[in-house]
Amino acid sequence: MTTATKPRVLDHPARDEIRLEAVLHALSDAVRLRIVSDLARAEGAELSCSFFELPVTKSTRTHHFRVLRESGVIEQVYRGTAKLNALRRADLDTLFPGLLDSVLTAADAQTTREAD
Amino acid sequence: MTTATKPRVLDHPARDEIRLEAVLHALSDAVRLRIVSDLARAEGAELSCSFFELPVTKSTRTHHFRVLRESGVIEQVYRGTAKLNALRRADLDTLFPGLLDSVLTAADAQTTREAD
Repeated sequence: MTTATKPRVLDHPARDEIRLEAVLHALSDAVRLRIVSDLARAEGAELSCSFFELPVTKSTRTHHFRVLRESGVIEQVYRGTAKLNALRRADLDTLFPGLLDSVLTAADAQTTREAD
Repeated sequence: MTTATKPRVLDHPARDEIRLEAVLHALSDAVRLRIVSDLARAEGAELSCSFFELPVTKSTRTHHFRVLRESGVIEQVYRGTAKLNALRRADLDTLFPGLLDSVLTAADAQTTREAD
């Protein structure tokens, strides 16, 4: 008797389970804002966790991606041992119109100010 | 010799000290979102802490207001023993255009969905 191995699936909140407080918390961190900005610029392309150049350890990076996934900001799928990430833009734009873009704009504005 | 008592002044971040991560963290709580929504509807009028009907203890309420003040979201001034609160809309709209309104809209949308 063989037992089929269940494919590796990561837990994601359904659209109607996504809460504003959790999304804002997820975005209230400089590293996570960076990840989200990079994903937004990728315009839907899936990026692996290792693609991002982040000034943190791998375990911290994993933590940040999990926070983003569990809050409903990103979707993660396994491709072998790597995880590919994409922004859940359609869900976020439907639930919270304009929020993602205003946060991305705000993050850019702050980065620009800090560079001066 | 008399010593003049220093007026009770609360610490606030200057506009250029306000950080997006701190503002988002401040807004990532249901009670604080409620406070900010009420202040926004007051359109600049100063409201005392006791004005808000919040399902928390007084000490928790004080904590929430402090988080909002220290992050730069609200301004608090003493009037006798009470504190009057106002949204720092001009600062937030200048630093992070559209952010406050999109968060308020998102909070309203979520409240409406939950009421259904």
